[in-house]
Amino acid sequence: MSALYRRVAFIGLGLIASSMAHAIRRAGLAESMTGTARSPETRKTAREMRLVDEVFETAAETVQGADLVVICAPVGAMEDIAREIAPHLAEGATVTDVGSVKQAVIAAVDPHLPAHVHFIPGHPLAGTEHSGPRSGFAELFHNRWCILTPLEGHDPAALDQLTSLWRGMGANVDLMDAPHHDLVLAVTSHTPHLIAYTMVGVADDLRRVTDSEVIKYSAAGFRDFTRIAASDPTMWRDVFLTNKEATLEILGRFTEELFALQRAIRRGDGAHLHAYFTRTRAIRRGIIEAGQDTDAPDFGRIKS
Amino acid sequence: MSALYRRVAFIGLGLIASSMAHAIRRAGLAESMTGTARSPETRKTAREMRLVDEVFETAAETVQGADLVVICAPVGAMEDIAREIAPHLAEGATVTDVGSVKQAVIAAVDPHLPAHVHFIPGHPLAGTEHSGPRSGFAELFHNRWCILTPLEGHDPAALDQLTSLWRGMGANVDLMDAPHHDLVLAVTSHTPHLIAYTMVGVADDLRRVTDSEVIKYSAAGFRDFTRIAASDPTMWRDVFLTNKEATLEILGRFTEELFALQRAIRRGDGAHLHAYFTRTRAIRRGIIEAGQDTDAPDFGRIKS
Repeated sequence: MSALYRRVAFIGLGLIASSMAHAIRRAGLAESMTGTARSPETRKTAREMRLVDEVFETAAETVQGADLVVICAPVGAMEDIAREIAPHLAEGATVTDVGSVKQAVIAAVDPHLPAHVHFIPGHPLAGTEHSGPRSGFAELFHNRWCILTPLEGHDPAALDQLTSLWRGMGANVDLMDAPHHDLVLAVTSHTPHLIAYTMVGVADDLRRVTDSEVIKYSAAGFRDFTRIAASDPTMWRDVFLTNKEATLEILGRFTEELFALQRAIRRGDGAHLHAYFTRTRAIRRGIIEAGQDTDAPDFGRIKS
Repeated sequence: MSALYRRVAFIGLGLIASSMAHAIRRAGLAESMTGTARSPETRKTAREMRLVDEVFETAAETVQGADLVVICAPVGAMEDIAREIAPHLAEGATVTDVGSVKQAVIAAVDPHLPAHVHFIPGHPLAGTEHSGPRSGFAELFHNRWCILTPLEGHDPAALDQLTSLWRGMGANVDLMDAPHHDLVLAVTSHTPHLIAYTMVGVADDLRRVTDSEVIKYSAAGFRDFTRIAASDPTMWRDVFLTNKEATLEILGRFTEELFALQRAIRRGDGAHLHAYFTRTRAIRRGIIEAGQDTDAPDFGRIKS
């Protein structure tokens, strides 16, 4: 594939940015890449790895001459970044981000950007429980979705170009409005993460069961929760602070359903439990058919 | 390894029994194996696969001449099975089970068994989201724990022999009393499963987010819940009906913690959220160090 952008600038060099850099380089999607990170250690690592062509101390320097700027920082840091880069953005550049919420990002970033750039918010639905510049790999976005939430009056050519970049990294692209994105993600990601964090916290608190027992016997189901709950704390704090309404709504529904099941257990209502558990199986089948997971037992952990 | 038992009889031929049969055969741990299952289709499949040496129509026939009987049926079916097999058990035979709860199994099975057999309840902490006689494989128990909960006054030689069998199938064996087992499993397995079922049910109910969206975007976290929630409904119904007290206790704690996090979100208390999410990371590290999971990103789904 020929280069889609002359110069891609990454603000933040964690899991997503480093995976993008690997994927862009491998597919030749950009002529050059620059990057910066808040922590000197991350910048040092990125230089050692030659993750991008040039690592700068500041976001202002990083975006100079870039025709694509990708903000890969926690959502809570984005307003300051937008303010800092705004005067240095090239005419006609595209600015995008990879934040897990979209309404809050738009509110934080859009007002600060000059009229001569195209802001197209984005969210690749891909990740692992690891973070930092060494955690990235080119295949992270393969067959995963990237949701773009373009604003009213956006430039179709800029959107096409960004869509091609994501496809070039192996992702499928969907368009959505920001409020719907935030609700869908509250269901498929934000609330599940909060619940996983909670369950791991409960296990840690329980004095009659020792930590070593919890760890030893984790393969019985708890293990899958700890993977989710091992994700980056700052990123997740910002997700819950900035997608508050949708998360609280889904949590409310979750609590209602949980109480109904709890009541069925207390009353010994086996028919209710069995019917509920049978219904949830069908959803799993749908996910495997949609190609979003493997059917191999135990996620392919065994025999791999 | 030389054979530990002359004849092993399986009552029930699902994931656990079929995995045991493969593992026992591969390691030469028994001279012969018999089996039965409630459903004619399962018996037919087991015969076609030559899963065991002989498949019988009834549990009574299956246990005849066996020096080890393994009850691999849902917990709710165990009392009837114990009643049926009791008159046919060989002198000195060991009877064990693989149920996910232990106090209820002891209450259901022990009173019916004759004095001339050794009853040693057991629970291998291994499984996948698949079920049925074709879902088994010899490696299922590799590096997994099997918890045995011997009763007071048990025969040490019979316990040693059963321990050797589990080790021969690749498992590590731990001893525990039944009430402690049920509490530990409520934390590490039963409550996580109930929560996963609930979250999947919530997603399914939400009309403003379509089913196809939930499925498409499941890789963002929800996917791991659906795997858990795809497990056998009958088995899980029986788990919750028979480990009621411990599950309700852990659920109560879970709800308390969830409400505290929900309040932090509502109030915008980022410090509370960040501290909580940081603490849970350490537990994940413990699990990887204990060898109960892989550190490969995304469970090794990628690049495998």
